[in-house]
Amino acid sequence: MSIHTPVCDLFGIEHPVLLAPMAGVSGGALAAAVSRAGGLGLIGGGYGDADWLEREFDAAGDARIGVGFITWSLARQPHLLDLVLDRTPAVLMLSFGNFKPFLPRIRDGQTKFVVQVQTLDQAREAVDAGVDAIVAQGTEAGGHGGTRATLPFVPAVVDIAKEIPVIAAGGIADGRGLAAALALGASGVLCGSGFFASDESLANDNAKQAAICGSGDDTERSSIFDMARGLDWPPGWNLRTMRNAFTRRWSADLDGLIQNLAEEQARFKAASAAGDTDVAAVIVGEAADLIQLREPAQVSLHRMISQAEDRLRCIVRLVEPTVKD
Amino acid sequence: MSIHTPVCDLFGIEHPVLLAPMAGVSGGALAAAVSRAGGLGLIGGGYGDADWLEREFDAAGDARIGVGFITWSLARQPHLLDLVLDRTPAVLMLSFGNFKPFLPRIRDGQTKFVVQVQTLDQAREAVDAGVDAIVAQGTEAGGHGGTRATLPFVPAVVDIAKEIPVIAAGGIADGRGLAAALALGASGVLCGSGFFASDESLANDNAKQAAICGSGDDTERSSIFDMARGLDWPPGWNLRTMRNAFTRRWSADLDGLIQNLAEEQARFKAASAAGDTDVAAVIVGEAADLIQLREPAQVSLHRMISQAEDRLRCIVRLVEPTVKD
Ligand SMILES: Cc1cc2nc3c(=O)[nH]c(=O)nc-3n(C[C@H](O)[C@H](O)[C@H](O)COP(=O)(O)O)c2cc1C
Ligand SMILES: Cc1cc2nc3c(=O)[nH]c(=O)nc-3n(C[C@H](O)[C@H](O)[C@H](O)COP(=O)(O)O)c2cc1C
Repeated sequence: MSIHTPVCDLFGIEHPVLLAPMAGVSGGALAAAVSRAGGLGLIGGGYGDADWLEREFDAAGDARIGVGFITWSLARQPHLLDLVLDRTPAVLMLSFGNFKPFLPRIRDGQTKFVVQVQTLDQAREAVDAGVDAIVAQGTEAGGHGGTRATLPFVPAVVDIAKEIPVIAAGGIADGRGLAAALALGASGVLCGSGFFASDESLANDNAKQAAICGSGDDTERSSIFDMARGLDWPPGWNLRTMRNAFTRRWSADLDGLIQNLAEEQARFKAASAAGDTDVAAVIVGEAADLIQLREPAQVSLHRMISQAEDRLRCIVRLVEPTVKD
Repeated sequence: MSIHTPVCDLFGIEHPVLLAPMAGVSGGALAAAVSRAGGLGLIGGGYGDADWLEREFDAAGDARIGVGFITWSLARQPHLLDLVLDRTPAVLMLSFGNFKPFLPRIRDGQTKFVVQVQTLDQAREAVDAGVDAIVAQGTEAGGHGGTRATLPFVPAVVDIAKEIPVIAAGGIADGRGLAAALALGASGVLCGSGFFASDESLANDNAKQAAICGSGDDTERSSIFDMARGLDWPPGWNLRTMRNAFTRRWSADLDGLIQNLAEEQARFKAASAAGDTDVAAVIVGEAADLIQLREPAQVSLHRMISQAEDRLRCIVRLVEPTVKD
C-alpha cells in the first residue's frame, strides 16, 4: 500500500501526506505518530513559545518530524528559528507573512523549506525564492487562511510552480480528497482538520467531539477569536472555526466585541480552559463532514491512502476504452 | 476518447460534462455546441423571458439540450415551465430556492430533473424528493452561489446522495478539475466559467476578454451587481464576479450604493450596453486562471476530456506496486 510522488523523494517519506503544523494541536506526539505511519508530521510552532517547542520536540522522540511557524509571529522572536534548526527538522514551513528574511538561514542546513500560500502572487514569490515545495491552501481549511478555494487554486499554483512540487491543503481529510489533489496536479496533501480529533492531538476532548459531530456547513471565517485571544493578525487572513454561541453573538458585531473586549476576553479564556465549546474556538474547517472518528492518527492516515488507491483504480476504469489495472 | 460514468447513461450523453445554464450567456448556440460535442448543453432560463427562451430553443436546432431556471424567479412566472417542457428538454435544472412545487409537473415527462445545491440540508431535501441527479456547487463558482467550497463539499454530498449521481460545479474548467471531481466521487461536472469565453457564448466580447485576462485572485462574491440590476435575490446567495472599478467603489459600502441607487443603476445599465467592463459585471469564478482562449466550446470540451484521461492514467501509476494501464 503506497502512493509514491515527488514529495515522497523530496522529504524521504513513504506517503505524500503531511500533518499541518496546527498551533496548540500538533504537538510532538501527533507529529511523531504521522511520521511513524509513513507521512510527515509537523509540530505547530504557532505564536512561539520556546519551552513548549523544546518539550514537544522531546515528545516526538526519535521520529523524523518537521515544524511550522506563523511567519509574522516568528519575525517578532526570530531566535526561535535557531532553537528549531538545532533540532534539524526534516521540514520547516512558514505561512502568513514575509518569509524572505528567514530563507538564507534555513538554506544552510539539511532542512527542506516549504511556504504555505493563499494567493498566486505569494506562489510567484515562493517560486522566485527557490523554496523546496509550496503548500497551496484553500479557504475551506481550518484555522487561518485566505479566500481562494482549493480546487481551482491548486492547478493555478501548479502552473506557476512548474518543477517545484505543490502540496494541496484545505478540505482534504480522506482518500477522495487525496486522490483529487493528485488529479489537480498536486504532489501531496497537508491535512489539519483531518488529524484534529486524532488520539494524539493536543486539542481539548470536547473540541474533538464537536469536530466529529460538526458539519462543514457550520463553519465560518472571522476575526473574533483572534480578538478574543488578543492576537493582532495582519489583514488578509482570518480564522475558520465551527460556529458556536460566541460566533453567533459577535461575528456580525465586531464593534460590539471591541466595546466589550476585556470582559469577552476573560469569558473566552475561562471557556477555553474549561473546554466549553459554546464559547471556546473549535478550529476545524469544511472537512468537518469527513471527520467521523476519534482514533490513532496512523489509522486515519492509512485509511486515507488505501481509499485514495481504491478511488484511483476505480476512476481510471471510467476511461474508455477501459484501462485495466 | 471518452470517460464513461453513470450520468452518461442517465442523460444519454458521451462525456460527463454539462454546460451550466448561465443567464444571458448560455443561449441555444452554446448549449447546442456543447451537446453536439458529446456533453450536455443547458440553456440559461435565468430570470425568465418567454420570447428569449423560444428564440434560444430555436437557435439550438435539433441538438438535444436541457434548460435551467433560477427557482425563486421561476416561482413568479410558473407558466415558463410549460413553455420549456413543451420542448421536452433532456434535463431541467433548478437552483436557488424551493424546487418542490415544480417537481410533480416535471416528473410527468421524459425530462430528467436536476437540482443544484449549496448546502448539505438542500442536498438532503433533493434526495428525499427523489431528484434524478444533484449538482453540488462550490463557492468558487462564477455567478450566484453559497459559501461551501467544492473540494470538501462534493464528497459530503456524495455520502448523502448514495445512489443518486452527484455532479460537481464550481472551479472546474479543465481536465484536472474533471479528474478531481471524479476522484471526489462525483459522476460528472457542470461548468460555467469554462465556457464563458467560448465563441458561441452570448457574453459580451469585452467581458470574454476580461475573463481570459483575469485571475481567480481577482474575483469576489457580493450583492452589488444584483442591486445595480434591481434583482431582489433572497438571502443566502450572492454573485461571484471579477473585481472592477464598480466593486472597488461599492463592495464595502452597500449603504452608499443604496443611497445612490437610481444613478448607479443607470450607470451600470449604460456600461453593460456598451461592454464597459470597468462597471459592468464580468461574471466568472475562480476558474478564471484556467480560461485562456477564445475558442469553440467543442475544442475546450474535448481538451478537458483528453486532459482528464491523461491525468487519470498518470496518477494511477503513482499507486505502488505500479498499476499498468
Ligand atoms: C486547529 C488548526 C490550527 C492551525 N494552526 C496553524 C498554524 O499555527 N500555522 C499554520 O501555518 N497553519 C495552521 N493551520 C492551517 C493548516 O496549516 C492547514 O492549512 C489547514 O489545516 C489545511 O486545511 P484542513 O484543516 O482542511 O486540513 C491550522 C489549522 C487547524 C485546523
Ligand atoms: C455567467 C454565469 C451566469 C450564471 N447564471 C446562472 C443561472 O442563471 N442559473 C444558475 O442556476 N446558475 C448560474 N450560474 C452558476 C452555474 O450554474 C454554475 O454553478 C457555475 O458556473 C459553476 O462554477 P464555474 O463557473 O466555476 O464553472 C452562472 C454562472 C456564470 C459563470
